[in-house]
Amino acid sequence: MCSLVLGRYSWCPAFVLWRTSSGSAGMAKSKFEYVKEFEVQDTCLRNCWVVVRVDGKNFHRFSEQHNFTKPNDIRALQLMNRCAKNVMKELDNICIAYGSSDEYSFVFHKNSNWHKRRASKFMTHVVSQFASSYVFYWKEFFSSQPILYPPGFDGRVVIYPSEENLKDYLSWRQADCHINNMYNTVFWALVQKGGLTPAKAQERLRGTLSADKNEILFSEFGINYNNEPLIYRKGSVLIWQKVNEVSKKTVKLSNETEEQEVEVSRWRTEPVLLHTDLIGEQFWEEHTAILSYR
Amino acid sequence: MCSLVLGRYSWCPAFVLWRTSSGSAGMAKSKFEYVKEFEVQDTCLRNCWVVVRVDGKNFHRFSEQHNFTKPNDIRALQLMNRCAKNVMKELDNICIAYGSSDEYSFVFHKNSNWHKRRASKFMTHVVSQFASSYVFYWKEFFSSQPILYPPGFDGRVVIYPSEENLKDYLSWRQADCHINNMYNTVFWALVQKGGLTPAKAQERLRGTLSADKNEILFSEFGINYNNEPLIYRKGSVLIWQKVNEVSKKTVKLSNETEEQEVEVSRWRTEPVLLHTDLIGEQFWEEHTAILSYR
Amino acid sequence: MCSLVLGRYSWCPAFVLWRTSSGSAGMAKSKFEYVKEFEVQDTCLRNCWVVVRVDGKNFHRFSEQHNFTKPNDIRALQLMNRCAKNVMKELDNICIAYGSSDEYSFVFHKNSNWHKRRASKFMTHVVSQFASSYVFYWKEFFSSQPILYPPGFDGRVVIYPSEENLKDYLSWRQADCHINNMYNTVFWALVQKGGLTPAKAQERLRGTLSADKNEILFSEFGINYNNEPLIYRKGSVLIWQKVNEVSKKTVKLSNETEEQEVEVSRWRTEPVLLHTDLIGEQFWEEHTAILSYR
Amino acid sequence: MCSLVLGRYSWCPAFVLWRTSSGSAGMAKSKFEYVKEFEVQDTCLRNCWVVVRVDGKNFHRFSEQHNFTKPNDIRALQLMNRCAKNVMKELDNICIAYGSSDEYSFVFHKNSNWHKRRASKFMTHVVSQFASSYVFYWKEFFSSQPILYPPGFDGRVVIYPSEENLKDYLSWRQADCHINNMYNTVFWALVQKGGLTPAKAQERLRGTLSADKNEILFSEFGINYNNEPLIYRKGSVLIWQKVNEVSKKTVKLSNETEEQEVEVSRWRTEPVLLHTDLIGEQFWEEHTAILSYR
Repeated sequence: MCSLVLGRYSWCPAFVLWRTSSGSAGMAKSKFEYVKEFEVQDTCLRNCWVVVRVDGKNFHRFSEQHNFTKPNDIRALQLMNRCAKNVMKELDNICIAYGSSDEYSFVFHKNSNWHKRRASKFMTHVVSQFASSYVFYWKEFFSSQPILYPPGFDGRVVIYPSEENLKDYLSWRQADCHINNMYNTVFWALVQKGGLTPAKAQERLRGTLSADKNEILFSEFGINYNNEPLIYRKGSVLIWQKVNEVSKKTVKLSNETEEQEVEVSRWRTEPVLLHTDLIGEQFWEEHTAILSYR
Repeated sequence: MCSLVLGRYSWCPAFVLWRTSSGSAGMAKSKFEYVKEFEVQDTCLRNCWVVVRVDGKNFHRFSEQHNFTKPNDIRALQLMNRCAKNVMKELDNICIAYGSSDEYSFVFHKNSNWHKRRASKFMTHVVSQFASSYVFYWKEFFSSQPILYPPGFDGRVVIYPSEENLKDYLSWRQADCHINNMYNTVFWALVQKGGLTPAKAQERLRGTLSADKNEILFSEFGINYNNEPLIYRKGSVLIWQKVNEVSKKTVKLSNETEEQEVEVSRWRTEPVLLHTDLIGEQFWEEHTAILSYR
Repeated sequence: MCSLVLGRYSWCPAFVLWRTSSGSAGMAKSKFEYVKEFEVQDTCLRNCWVVVRVDGKNFHRFSEQHNFTKPNDIRALQLMNRCAKNVMKELDNICIAYGSSDEYSFVFHKNSNWHKRRASKFMTHVVSQFASSYVFYWKEFFSSQPILYPPGFDGRVVIYPSEENLKDYLSWRQADCHINNMYNTVFWALVQKGGLTPAKAQERLRGTLSADKNEILFSEFGINYNNEPLIYRKGSVLIWQKVNEVSKKTVKLSNETEEQEVEVSRWRTEPVLLHTDLIGEQFWEEHTAILSYR
Repeated sequence: MCSLVLGRYSWCPAFVLWRTSSGSAGMAKSKFEYVKEFEVQDTCLRNCWVVVRVDGKNFHRFSEQHNFTKPNDIRALQLMNRCAKNVMKELDNICIAYGSSDEYSFVFHKNSNWHKRRASKFMTHVVSQFASSYVFYWKEFFSSQPILYPPGFDGRVVIYPSEENLKDYLSWRQADCHINNMYNTVFWALVQKGGLTPAKAQERLRGTLSADKNEILFSEFGINYNNEPLIYRKGSVLIWQKVNEVSKKTVKLSNETEEQEVEVSRWRTEPVLLHTDLIGEQFWEEHTAILSYR
């Protein structure tokens, strides 16, 4: 009997099996192209509402350096609305937008398949269009003073599976607008009209409820908060609506020989600005087209 | 001049543009197949080490109901090792595994492209193979007592970009093993040999350092902790190694007419069990093949 | 005029700013604990249905090695149902499960907050409990033959935002069960009773529609497909239902002096097995409690 | 013997267990705040290089409407570089950036913990700062013509675990720059100087290799491609370097009584522009500080 080595069969997953790495397939153009495979899919769950919220970066500093009126600068708010309108028109499938102060939320319809629903596409397209619009439209609202430096914005994507969740999101932002605006209105009344230092004004307001703030405004400054402009108290809503556009055109009608000027009326669907309550069912009952197809 | 409506051009992204939803493409077989599109890609970042850690679910209760010896039940540990060996052999690309107590970690090589590196595949294959093995091999280690119910395990995936991170992960688990085993060794000595209640033993150990625990073991129970079995103190490491397998075979050699029995020696790469230090560089210097190809 | 270096102010984000890396915080126990921070959150979107689907790994081979009856092995199906029942009882918040062949789907309620909705927890708990149950309960259904090796399973998580999507998912699986079972029924009739080779049977069936297959079964083998057992044609549904459990107990009633044996009836909510249509509204109308709270 | 219902113990996970949903905790401010919990963590894997790539949206159209010179418009490239410099200065932890044509890549250091490494923060801050800068700095480079509308940009995040992967990514972009620029250079020579239509030029170039294109340029138009400006052929690299900044200041030195004007020299670390090879090791050997800490 002898000892015999029949073969040196050596099997080991750690050294052999994955030698044919997947990288090789994509190297048509250059040997570096394998790096494309590190990109990840970031698809937003289908059949869900996609919200992109944009926030100004360091806008406290920005508003001071550009002398924004306190507590609200109407030009700054109108500029925000102008940018948001541009975003709605340049991008697809945004069915409603809501903004207040230095933030704006854009809602992509749950059936949207824009850019295969990639979260990064939703975010970066919104935020870059908003940012370039901000500088571009600045002079329409701040004619007398130039913009000093290019502002930054931060964006995020949040996904909502149900209409109820989406409405609650928008209600949350509007409730926030209300709370902040009431606080700021009293705070700046105390400072600008009451002569308090900011620190004293802050102290005065610590722990006060909504009713207390209303009372301070009314008894000390004669301000009825409910008469403040809606754009400050409710923020801004943008929805698509049919608007009738009338223009003049020179045409030759079929049964005439002479050209004649006619008024051409044309229905266009445009982003339309509202300052209204989103909280509660009334808004949604009046604007059923926003969320549905019909 | 007259007013004329030339057309009713109506454009609105919210109602028109995405009517051709992507769902329609996949409906070859049934109108329900669109639901497949809700699955998300969960690829593990390429060129990274993928660790799957398995933990026993409610193993405190399980160990009591099956009368595991305290602080360590050698049969239970051997069963865990048996299951881990099975996982390494059934799945691809695991280059090292480490376990102690009721947990086990499996490391897939950073170059693995197994199941397109989907995290869910890594996790569920490991954990299901481990769980079925646990019941299957139970009787090899607990011959005298049956398993009372099917145990559950929990699993997770963690990704490490560098060898250093990976080694630190394994060191972390071994440091944990050390800390827990030393505590348990003293605790059960106090209870089983010192006659303390569990509550009293716990109280006695509160705030003690490693040196204190060594001292209690030695002075009160004559136990030198460093003489405790390595499998308890260091846990268990599984790596692939070539093992020589000798078997007998009846062959007819070419230059002979009669059959004869020969010893056939064959090199196989097998998961081999070690109870050694992973912390520090020595282990990795001695086993360079684990992480590299050659 | 002279040249003067006032200072060597050097600022560079690449070298200075993030020196205090976040790793340092978690190093209480050992310097390796920073590795915990590589774990990622994998929360399932809230307010969505979470489906975990389990599939047998290499069950074609497994079924041959264990001599499963073709086209359906009732013992194997009953074992699958037994495992699924165990999963429903051991885990929380599963409101319905559906299985056929070697796969099973488990639906976690959209309001579930089990393990903070971590996808890895949902997946690994289901799949490990299922796998260990498979070996554990094997002998109850395959008494005469032992299980040869521990089987593996693969699992995945899919998220559905609406009830409609969820129902469509279950309908998709049931439609699949129907299509596969009809094919297999004819295929094995052709092979087992018609004497065709598997290749010939496959060829015979290429391109046939449902009606053709029905016709072959009836005219050639006298089989009315609609009389085949429901468990084969519809698969298996598990839902929670109140069942009345009657047991005997020896009690002493307050107004008696002697003990006496009574029948104790107790309502328990148990996973109950159905073989019925999930496609269409009828099932959901009859079992509204599955998806709602009430 | 009588029948007795002892109790109506009813247990069912689908109806009972998760009634205390997690939503309730966050409702301090308003009942809508639960919607915050739908946001997901999108942390970039630690110890990895984070690349954000910005691409112009519809820049083909944009460049035509703004009469960009073909094949390269030096003003447009300088504007891109100006924007990138602004991004590097406004954001933290960018250690190198590379751009060509209408795209720019920014590399965040693997040790960066900026905004907790949230991918959405990296992306949106880069892309919004880039977009606002584009409009803001436009007039510095296109003095004679105004920008017609606010441009959009798209952004993405890609993660690279190793230095080699990162270098290969940058090499990939530079190889792309080379291939595109050579093609465009010949294409526009054929059109602008050779009098070919774009369609004819495209046809002429189909299937040509690098050597063929060099030959066409040289023999037909007397252009030596290697003499084309580096900014076109290599793209633009931005890295941090110490630069000596000299300014004049009026100071009173300690031992003098009169004020006098001095030149103040100050070292600042600034983004510095290079047009050089990233492919190959030389660049990285000469600039080791980019990727390391020192």
